[in-house]
Amino acid sequence: MQDSPIYLDYNATTPPAPEVIEAMLPALRDLWGNPSSAHAFGQPARRAVDAAREQVAALIGCAADEVIFTCGGTESDNAAIVGIAEALADRGKHIVISAVEHAAIDNACAYLERNSWRTTRVPVDRNGRVDAKEFVDSLRDETALVSIMHSNNETGVIQPVREIADAAHERGIVVHSDTAQSLGKVALTADDLGVDSLTVAGHKLYGPKGAGALYLRRDTPFNGFLRGAGHEGGRRGGTENVAGIVGLGAACELARRELPQRTEHLLELRDRLEQRLRDRVPELVVHGKSVERLPNTLSAAFPGVDANHLLSLAEGVASAAGAACHSGKPHISRVLAAMGVSDELALATVRLTVGCPTRTEDVDRAAERLGAAYARSRAS
Amino acid sequence: MQDSPIYLDYNATTPPAPEVIEAMLPALRDLWGNPSSAHAFGQPARRAVDAAREQVAALIGCAADEVIFTCGGTESDNAAIVGIAEALADRGKHIVISAVEHAAIDNACAYLERNSWRTTRVPVDRNGRVDAKEFVDSLRDETALVSIMHSNNETGVIQPVREIADAAHERGIVVHSDTAQSLGKVALTADDLGVDSLTVAGHKLYGPKGAGALYLRRDTPFNGFLRGAGHEGGRRGGTENVAGIVGLGAACELARRELPQRTEHLLELRDRLEQRLRDRVPELVVHGKSVERLPNTLSAAFPGVDANHLLSLAEGVASAAGAACHSGKPHISRVLAAMGVSDELALATVRLTVGCPTRTEDVDRAAERLGAAYARSRAS
Repeated sequence: MQDSPIYLDYNATTPPAPEVIEAMLPALRDLWGNPSSAHAFGQPARRAVDAAREQVAALIGCAADEVIFTCGGTESDNAAIVGIAEALADRGKHIVISAVEHAAIDNACAYLERNSWRTTRVPVDRNGRVDAKEFVDSLRDETALVSIMHSNNETGVIQPVREIADAAHERGIVVHSDTAQSLGKVALTADDLGVDSLTVAGHKLYGPKGAGALYLRRDTPFNGFLRGAGHEGGRRGGTENVAGIVGLGAACELARRELPQRTEHLLELRDRLEQRLRDRVPELVVHGKSVERLPNTLSAAFPGVDANHLLSLAEGVASAAGAACHSGKPHISRVLAAMGVSDELALATVRLTVGCPTRTEDVDRAAERLGAAYARSRAS
Repeated sequence: MQDSPIYLDYNATTPPAPEVIEAMLPALRDLWGNPSSAHAFGQPARRAVDAAREQVAALIGCAADEVIFTCGGTESDNAAIVGIAEALADRGKHIVISAVEHAAIDNACAYLERNSWRTTRVPVDRNGRVDAKEFVDSLRDETALVSIMHSNNETGVIQPVREIADAAHERGIVVHSDTAQSLGKVALTADDLGVDSLTVAGHKLYGPKGAGALYLRRDTPFNGFLRGAGHEGGRRGGTENVAGIVGLGAACELARRELPQRTEHLLELRDRLEQRLRDRVPELVVHGKSVERLPNTLSAAFPGVDANHLLSLAEGVASAAGAACHSGKPHISRVLAAMGVSDELALATVRLTVGCPTRTEDVDRAAERLGAAYARSRAS
């Protein structure tokens, strides 16, 4: 008999909260009017979008008109990098980011590089953290934009965003932060971080897929990204995804209410998982162990085994391996490589991430299965 | 007592079909895994996305791998213009479009113009149609891309896409068509039109908002637009909006099945509405009357009255006026202006669009109310 699988991949995606689905159903059925329509079918949809905007703003501590709805974290990151950079091209065409940014940031910069922009990718130490001083030293007169993620999706390591943002602002540089993995897991506001823009991804915080937001501080230069018929105050084109937006609003509302308990719950279960695993695998290597990390993330190498093989043996533990196999060749994680993790250890790394629905017995069962799978793998 | 309002704004948006909502609910609840995850939570979501891709492909008559999911018509249009043009910059930096394209096309071209691209906007005649010969005459050696909408969102007027596409292809030029308003209303396939890419917008064909697709013929040069972690075969970043995609697939499946009856139903009701209105308003001016139009669209001027005032008098007729009031100043429709419609007539224009749920009594009541409102408006 096989037990039900244990989901430990909450950094990949989260199930929409029951409150989110409950909010979305009537929106799908009844609020189908176009929010741009002045008539009786459009206006309730408009009001629902406005209410959701307040909910998102309340979570990140900003004004409602500083929230732009997008289709998710990738669009928000792309829009921030491309939309802000292109508005600042006269200032200079240089961007500074970390070496471990999400692909939505890194590839947006790579896109601008084709058009004579230059990007400095500041390295991270073996714990996965940039050195704030080194980051700030790489700012130049022609630096227009800085982007520094709040937490890393693979390791959960938290970057010194505030320190970098303050130093960048002293030089008049605009600052974006990819906060997609942090929102809903730890308390943070735009003002805490001191940034000009930040990214909200619905499906990372128990909201729907296909809905996200970009916080854009008032008066931040921005040329736009999706271009259509003047929605979102002319900042983002496209008919609003009303039901998705309503779901995102509900998810933000829930996160704001539950945050203190959530953080505590995640931390307790993650630490328990780590301890139970270490009891069985004393040689376990935890990436980012000695620096501040997200409370839910455990990126750990099981020395001497292949992570994908390990996961296939640990039947029913649904997690991500630190390396993906593309066309038969193992592809080492860019993040782990930037941390100087050896290929061997990167290939042995599993990302275990707990979430709100995770229970004590889930982490205990997962530790047991992974421990047993490790023993079998080592024996073979 | 006020009657229930009559929705005649199906070109602005459509309610999701019951079949679409039915398909989306279990997807929202159960298929929340990340399709990129190899485990038991991700793979059912992956299969659902693949199945929806087949449904979209079946509607537009292409292979499944030629369908890229997007967040809607605006993204599809932006991605086609920017993503294809940037891949062809070595060929030349000239684009030809019509003067009546949707803002998602027109503004994408305007964006490229900031980066030394040139756009020729081919005028339309008084019926709103481009002359195919004039369009083709504007192609140059350095023309990389052509974009010509299938039908216009305001007037429903259908453009000679095939003729233009064939001539462009003879010159090795790539051809995009914005088919957002046509799909689900009239039968068309990518091969019928002979285009290299076309736009699908979920919420225009009884699918969800926030979901769309771009058809991209195999081997069409494309640099991408949303840039993330290599989804959609590396052509579009961002975690897939699984429930939205499932809903889009269901909407396309439904459209394919129902299309012949749909077209007939729309045509019958639109023509009935037109006739009933003309009975009451003999001086009614129908834009695009003498050329091929979408079967559901009636763009009509009520001479001598202000359309917004007319709609406010015709209580409960939910339609769009041909002019919008921005900051107190009437803003004439770009489409009507391009057709040479006088400001006075443009300001008197209402776009009445019927849909699948529209009933005979709806158009009869609407004609009655609009006729009465017109009489009151003229009398005052």
